Amino acid sequence: MIRLRLSLALSYEVNEPDSNFIFNIHAAHTSRQTVVDESLVVNQLVPLTVETDPTTGNRYLRLSAATGPLQIFYTASVDLTHYMAAPEQIAEVPVARLPAQVLGYIYPSRYCQSDRLYRLAMREFGQRQQGYSRVQTIRDWVAQRITYAKNTSDSNSSAIDTLIETAGVCRDFAHLMIALCRASNIPARFTTGINYGVDPAYGPLDFHAYVEVYLAGGWYLFDPSGTAIPMGLVRFGTGRDAADVAFATIFGEVGSSPPVINIEAIAGADGLLVMPQLVHSALSTDG
Amino acid sequence: MIRLRLSLALSYEVNEPDSNFIFNIHAAHTSRQTVVDESLVVNQLVPLTVETDPTTGNRYLRLSAATGPLQIFYTASVDLTHYMAAPEQIAEVPVARLPAQVLGYIYPSRYCQSDRLYRLAMREFGQRQQGYSRVQTIRDWVAQRITYAKNTSDSNSSAIDTLIETAGVCRDFAHLMIALCRASNIPARFTTGINYGVDPAYGPLDFHAYVEVYLAGGWYLFDPSGTAIPMGLVRFGTGRDAADVAFATIFGEVGSSPPVINIEAIAGADGLLVMPQLVHSALSTDG
Amino acid sequence: MIRLRLSLALSYEVNEPDSNFIFNIHAAHTSRQTVVDESLVVNQLVPLTVETDPTTGNRYLRLSAATGPLQIFYTASVDLTHYMAAPEQIAEVPVARLPAQVLGYIYPSRYCQSDRLYRLAMREFGQRQQGYSRVQTIRDWVAQRITYAKNTSDSNSSAIDTLIETAGVCRDFAHLMIALCRASNIPARFTTGINYGVDPAYGPLDFHAYVEVYLAGGWYLFDPSGTAIPMGLVRFGTGRDAADVAFATIFGEVGSSPPVINIEAIAGADGLLVMPQLVHSALSTDG
Amino acid sequence: MIRLRLSLALSYEVNEPDSNFIFNIHAAHTSRQTVVDESLVVNQLVPLTVETDPTTGNRYLRLSAATGPLQIFYTASVDLTHYMAAPEQIAEVPVARLPAQVLGYIYPSRYCQSDRLYRLAMREFGQRQQGYSRVQTIRDWVAQRITYAKNTSDSNSSAIDTLIETAGVCRDFAHLMIALCRASNIPARFTTGINYGVDPAYGPLDFHAYVEVYLAGGWYLFDPSGTAIPMGLVRFGTGRDAADVAFATIFGEVGSSPPVINIEAIAGADGLLVMPQLVHSALSTDG
Repeated sequence: MIRLRLSLALSYEVNEPDSNFIFNIHAAHTSRQTVVDESLVVNQLVPLTVETDPTTGNRYLRLSAATGPLQIFYTASVDLTHYMAAPEQIAEVPVARLPAQVLGYIYPSRYCQSDRLYRLAMREFGQRQQGYSRVQTIRDWVAQRITYAKNTSDSNSSAIDTLIETAGVCRDFAHLMIALCRASNIPARFTTGINYGVDPAYGPLDFHAYVEVYLAGGWYLFDPSGTAIPMGLVRFGTGRDAADVAFATIFGEVGSSPPVINIEAIAGADGLLVMPQLVHSALSTDG
Repeated sequence: MIRLRLSLALSYEVNEPDSNFIFNIHAAHTSRQTVVDESLVVNQLVPLTVETDPTTGNRYLRLSAATGPLQIFYTASVDLTHYMAAPEQIAEVPVARLPAQVLGYIYPSRYCQSDRLYRLAMREFGQRQQGYSRVQTIRDWVAQRITYAKNTSDSNSSAIDTLIETAGVCRDFAHLMIALCRASNIPARFTTGINYGVDPAYGPLDFHAYVEVYLAGGWYLFDPSGTAIPMGLVRFGTGRDAADVAFATIFGEVGSSPPVINIEAIAGADGLLVMPQLVHSALSTDG
Repeated sequence: MIRLRLSLALSYEVNEPDSNFIFNIHAAHTSRQTVVDESLVVNQLVPLTVETDPTTGNRYLRLSAATGPLQIFYTASVDLTHYMAAPEQIAEVPVARLPAQVLGYIYPSRYCQSDRLYRLAMREFGQRQQGYSRVQTIRDWVAQRITYAKNTSDSNSSAIDTLIETAGVCRDFAHLMIALCRASNIPARFTTGINYGVDPAYGPLDFHAYVEVYLAGGWYLFDPSGTAIPMGLVRFGTGRDAADVAFATIFGEVGSSPPVINIEAIAGADGLLVMPQLVHSALSTDG
Repeated sequence: MIRLRLSLALSYEVNEPDSNFIFNIHAAHTSRQTVVDESLVVNQLVPLTVETDPTTGNRYLRLSAATGPLQIFYTASVDLTHYMAAPEQIAEVPVARLPAQVLGYIYPSRYCQSDRLYRLAMREFGQRQQGYSRVQTIRDWVAQRITYAKNTSDSNSSAIDTLIETAGVCRDFAHLMIALCRASNIPARFTTGINYGVDPAYGPLDFHAYVEVYLAGGWYLFDPSGTAIPMGLVRFGTGRDAADVAFATIFGEVGSSPPVINIEAIAGADGLLVMPQLVHSALSTDG
């Protein structure tokens, strides 16, 4: 069991009365991710709600802010009890046996146009042995071809753009890997959160995007950008792609500053401090 | 109350053993659409399941077919008890009050890239009075600019393509209207089914795509292609866009023939025959 | 006759030896644009050539620079003797009579995908009276729908992107107008230069992109962005679209600063100072 | 010296009076392609012109046809005296020494968006030894990744689409190879014509699209689709991409039938019959 303590501070300047915000900045409740304690402080005295999406478990903070500064502080301690398995024992699930609620994740979405990549996926991955290792091959294919580079992509960039321009940030790596999995008839989804252990060379800590792939009855973690230690990922939201799980969706004229984010490993309930580390095992926190 | 009787026959030639099919050809169960009776006949003696998606109510028929002909016959009698309201009494729901399960329908999707249309939507519809009439304006804007024409679009065509090339079929009209609604922060979804009363000039009866828009607590029907009588629509599936609700998703080498579809109005439980007609009221079968 | 005096200073930091530059920063020689005097100063003592493209009259300065600062100063005095005509007397040239060397300008190009806009152009402009006024209608259509806004487009943006996102800078306005002209079978080309009389609200003077349209045997000036006085345009280059006439094409690792540009009207050979002004006449400096 | 005799028959049904046609179906005059004899027969008695573009040598047949059938028969005997060289002796031309009239062929065009492929080209080909062999590597890269398949692309398909969907016809192979050459700063152009020796498995003989690349002072032939024997190519037109050199550009409502094309090797002026054959030498008919 790993316990991570994270904090994040978001800062906005609201220029239009009653600007609406939908945040996805709460640690998700999953079968293997438990929120031990958390706090939320908002500098404006406005009504706010936190709703949980019954399908995904995403938690959404919603509020309408008045003109002026808006500041959100969130802290949480999160316990991760990863399901770990040997990669060679994790099979793909044939389409015929995919649960109904998973089917949506083999269809194309806004930023993951898997429908255009069937031939490419078939040529590159079609002959590979089915199972976790095939997904790992897809993950490595993306990691090798795409260069991590800021300011080469924007919020409009899709998996196809990334494939063509061969550069991007974590979000772009995730979209391309997802599109290639779906084009191989393997369900894959976009996941956001905070990652422990990121190399400071990547700049100040930011929200992270990674991938969960449905195999052998669970959702397994992959980080195609290679910037995170998968064991150190705290999940906030999961969806089809970035269109579903922006950390903040804003309706109104609002200026923003970069988020300030921290995360550290702390001692768990048993007093032991366990650090996330790179492992060869397959990891899941959901399913 | 309107009772419609529909039948459809699908015919395939399966060239690969264990080809998988996911059909969405069952009339949906909604608060105002009731399936009075139905039958399903499949010429192959294979196991089949019909599952209902808890979120959308879509019903999915799944089966694995053997090599050779595969034929599916479905018939149903469906009662529609439309909620009808005066358009001027139907308000938009402010973003702040949109239910969590509706939020996904304001985000962009594979074929409805609303994120790229905010400025256009703002200029064209931003000054319009909020409510049903604004959505009607969007529907009419699409209907006036797009020409109904077969073979001008394909399964890869999106709302943006339709906006540029100004031609398409019902699916393309629906995608563009949905994208413009979402770009105006109005939830909209893609709906498929069979429509009663289509002009024979459009050719043999086919599956139809139309739009449901979330207003005043319910999903209201719009047919931007202008080919259907909204009161005569029987719903099969609803989703983000065509990526979610193909009437048949096929995994394997399979040849297909055009579907054969019939629909007629019949007398209801009270012995009265009520025909769908064009009305100025707002209509909903869900919500 | 108008005489304009312009100067421009370009400043680079060359980080790779033998970096290659192709500049298109010389005032073009056309039938009605005469370079009275000009000077070119380059801070590096490297061989340089100035070539004139026989087809377009574009003049290209080419050089290979050493590591370190590279600075280019260009000044010129240019006489413009516009051909002016009443718009109602300028007819379109039927395709059958277009000169061979003009034909290329009705075909689509990198940023002007006119092949996808035939239906839209036909619906919007097909019923308009042929001639200068139809082109003016196209120009106004673009000017009204597109908002001038920096940082909404980039070097990858095309006419289609501009049509969808309804915002851009002079280059984007030009691409969209060109695409719509070509989709109407009217030859149009992308022209770059410096414009006199730009409103300081648009920021420091920069290179300008505008449109020349082939009508009645000559190329007529249009400024869809509305930021320039057409009579005050000094032409540098002309081509299919921005892909052909970048003011600087650079091969190598080079940093750059914004150009510093000035232009003023001065007294001509006859001692008279004539200022460019907005006129209703059709204007041409070529043909 | 190879002498090829070709014939082609084009057949249209003109439904609109004064429909305009621009054909590029004459064998080009190049330094090494000589038209020994040719004939053109048009079934309608209408004025026609054949113009030669001074820059490319493309020959354009132009005419306005009356309502009714339009039939064009063209035959020619063409002598090809290929320049042949050992591949290892053919160097690339540094950008700094590219002739002005060649520069346009390193810029992106409608169907060859080389500007988006710089990183990909750098990663795949940047470390290769410069010269003919690098271009051969690009050609082979395309040939290996793209599957020849009809009905997978259309007239709107670009190099980017082909790269993504990994299938197409000769035109698509050519666009992708051209885009990758330009992204590597190697001038490349789109060439059309008739190819001798095509495998009947590809169906009835059709117009062919291939690539010419500028190396060591000349334009060298490449056939990325692998369907032709480069020595058997008779050139009709050359341009930036397919937008420039359609074999027929039609203005008006016109129906068309597939072209009927034949080509055979015949004895030359010296009475010798030389057959085109696959060779390892680099081949050029221009420059």
